[in-house]
Amino acid sequence: MTIRRQNGLAVDSLLAIGRQAKSAARVLALAPAAQKDRALRAAAAALRARADDILAINAADQEAARAAGRPASFIDRLTLTGPRVEAIARGLEDIAALPDPVGAVIASWERPNGLKISRVRVPLGVIGMIYESRPNVTADAGGLCLKSGNAAILRGGSECFESNRAIHACLAEGLRTAGLPETAIQLVTTTDRDAVGYMLEGLGGAIDVIVPRGGKSLVERVQKEARVPVFAHLEGICHVYVDKAADLEMARAIVLNAKLRRTGVCGAAETLLVDEAGAAQLLRPLVQALLDAGCEVRGDEATCAVDARVVPAAEADWHTEYLDAIISVKLVPGVRGAIDHIAKYGSQHTESIVTDDPATAETFLREVDSAIVLHNASTQFADGGEFGMGAEIGIATGRFHARGPVGVEQLTTFKYAVRGNGQIRPL
Amino acid sequence: MTIRRQNGLAVDSLLAIGRQAKSAARVLALAPAAQKDRALRAAAAALRARADDILAINAADQEAARAAGRPASFIDRLTLTGPRVEAIARGLEDIAALPDPVGAVIASWERPNGLKISRVRVPLGVIGMIYESRPNVTADAGGLCLKSGNAAILRGGSECFESNRAIHACLAEGLRTAGLPETAIQLVTTTDRDAVGYMLEGLGGAIDVIVPRGGKSLVERVQKEARVPVFAHLEGICHVYVDKAADLEMARAIVLNAKLRRTGVCGAAETLLVDEAGAAQLLRPLVQALLDAGCEVRGDEATCAVDARVVPAAEADWHTEYLDAIISVKLVPGVRGAIDHIAKYGSQHTESIVTDDPATAETFLREVDSAIVLHNASTQFADGGEFGMGAEIGIATGRFHARGPVGVEQLTTFKYAVRGNGQIRPL
Repeated sequence: MTIRRQNGLAVDSLLAIGRQAKSAARVLALAPAAQKDRALRAAAAALRARADDILAINAADQEAARAAGRPASFIDRLTLTGPRVEAIARGLEDIAALPDPVGAVIASWERPNGLKISRVRVPLGVIGMIYESRPNVTADAGGLCLKSGNAAILRGGSECFESNRAIHACLAEGLRTAGLPETAIQLVTTTDRDAVGYMLEGLGGAIDVIVPRGGKSLVERVQKEARVPVFAHLEGICHVYVDKAADLEMARAIVLNAKLRRTGVCGAAETLLVDEAGAAQLLRPLVQALLDAGCEVRGDEATCAVDARVVPAAEADWHTEYLDAIISVKLVPGVRGAIDHIAKYGSQHTESIVTDDPATAETFLREVDSAIVLHNASTQFADGGEFGMGAEIGIATGRFHARGPVGVEQLTTFKYAVRGNGQIRPL
Repeated sequence: MTIRRQNGLAVDSLLAIGRQAKSAARVLALAPAAQKDRALRAAAAALRARADDILAINAADQEAARAAGRPASFIDRLTLTGPRVEAIARGLEDIAALPDPVGAVIASWERPNGLKISRVRVPLGVIGMIYESRPNVTADAGGLCLKSGNAAILRGGSECFESNRAIHACLAEGLRTAGLPETAIQLVTTTDRDAVGYMLEGLGGAIDVIVPRGGKSLVERVQKEARVPVFAHLEGICHVYVDKAADLEMARAIVLNAKLRRTGVCGAAETLLVDEAGAAQLLRPLVQALLDAGCEVRGDEATCAVDARVVPAAEADWHTEYLDAIISVKLVPGVRGAIDHIAKYGSQHTESIVTDDPATAETFLREVDSAIVLHNASTQFADGGEFGMGAEIGIATGRFHARGPVGVEQLTTFKYAVRGNGQIRPL
């Protein structure tokens, strides 16, 4: 795909991408499962066959990012290695192995007048994906959209455009091999930031949903400018509440895992709430376990008192997604206190309670208004794969359509098929 | 609820309505079914007890609308009568009799690591309803939101503010009787049109979804200004396709019912497509039946040729939702031609095929991309009640979250409750 530049922005070309996607979506919506899976497997084969080229192209992207003074974490995210390319290829094969969501009958019933009503899964249409410099997302998102019968318009971060282009060429080869339109997965490669604005406006009615994946500035821009529905993947200010009836060993294992298994994922815990009625037994060992594992602890007064290494938490800490080895810790008056704190500071992503009291656990599960609420398990299970959904595009934090992990089923909608034998509606 | 006016617009009061709704939503989300149903039944009783007052207030609204020169159809929509008030009260009781959608477990499964995952229905939160001058919507929408555990902010047309206020007082009495916060259903009674704008922006983050019900100008405004998700209820340019393998008697009955049972509903047919291979037997009798029933027919060349009363259709006719006793009629080359015509001109609302050929029917059901597709049945079945969902707020024409009839289930979202016994996620 080449962008013809006019007045600094290739609006016509972007609109053409939209039209092509809409037309490809109609083909894709009706494509048999076997044809879509063949495209996914052929794309995986192409990735393996071209791995050396892809790594060379990616090395140049890394070099440019380093020259531009990008931080190490940024460069790590855009870096491909042999095993990472293999993981991307295997990811596409895993998507191929999932059941086809399209055409599945979700529900069916018969009316007294004999009408037979079925609710049938159909694709959403055209999905616009806006993401930062992680080349693996190009394959993951393209593959998930293809499997769910949607056309995809991908706009990745400019620092890995060349890596994205190389990966996209493999997806295009897969589509070609399977006899599907290559325009089913298109890559927007203009570096003009206004391209994102045009996508957020829907590319002339072509885009049915925008999936943004990125930091706060992208998310804020999306919320301000989007004129089409959005699967928001916002911050995860996740909480673990340790109740007075918690088993200390279980609580310690869950808190350490929720915070430190990976600190950069949206399901990582950012705040530990401890029941003040259990503080005497629980607070010091939990805080010390975190400190000993290398985690910075920012605590309220009681937490500061248990270990000199704890620093005082400010009000802002309760609002902060650290995405780092830092945790805020606070005593709360029981499960009600935890529920109130989460209602005030949480981001409706994922929260966990540790307790051996089933009634307290059920209160928490019922009253905490988050996409995922867990009892006696780590918040890091907030993941489509861990839920058994296969690959995911991310964790949706909105309340609409998809909530929690967004996999192939969540990328579909439905229609009603109604079968009659001449029914007309009485007056 | 009184609006304090400042600089012509009561922004502070509107924001206060939002905050009160958000706080009421937390209570309502956890309210037991019996308490919500008690509020609905008490509201119905209040409507009956105050019917005379309501009718007197409504008569004044009618008088003012007549004095303002509003057309008869407009005045009919805002007019209440004894039977209409009784129907509104019975509607609330019907909603009370529906099963409570909140808390229902939609799906549950266990993971190999022993985690038990449930997907549980929960309310959406705060629903902002913007509608025109139909006082019955005040009760219907308020009742459906209450049943589904959502707080409602209702903004009806200014010409029936007093009627709405009288009906709203009955809803408030019902909430009070049941011990629920009266702020669970609030009525915005400022006549300032900017109130709609503030609602579309979400009232400071308070509104989770906007449900607009109205004509094109409202819908266009919503699409331009809404910053929160919308359940769009757009136009229904519904089609009936009569295939060459159709039974003429069945086709005639379905076409007449689809077009003429009620012409003002969104599921009314606006275009009749006839298979050119069956035109010789089908076209003239279908067209004449429509003409004889008092329907204006705007046809393509072949249709004009069958009866002198047919007027030629212009290109605009294929795009038009008449909501009147007018139909456009066209020959198409078989089911493929019908599918292509609908893809080009339809509004993805409701379409029907009449045929005795099951393979042709399945092609149509599969390939027509509308919320509702029917075989051998009238498009006027596009209705939540006819689908067995009970009352509905309307037919959603978007592809997101709710598609087709929006009843109490569609006014909910879900969360995942995950029960473990100490699981942590491996690296």
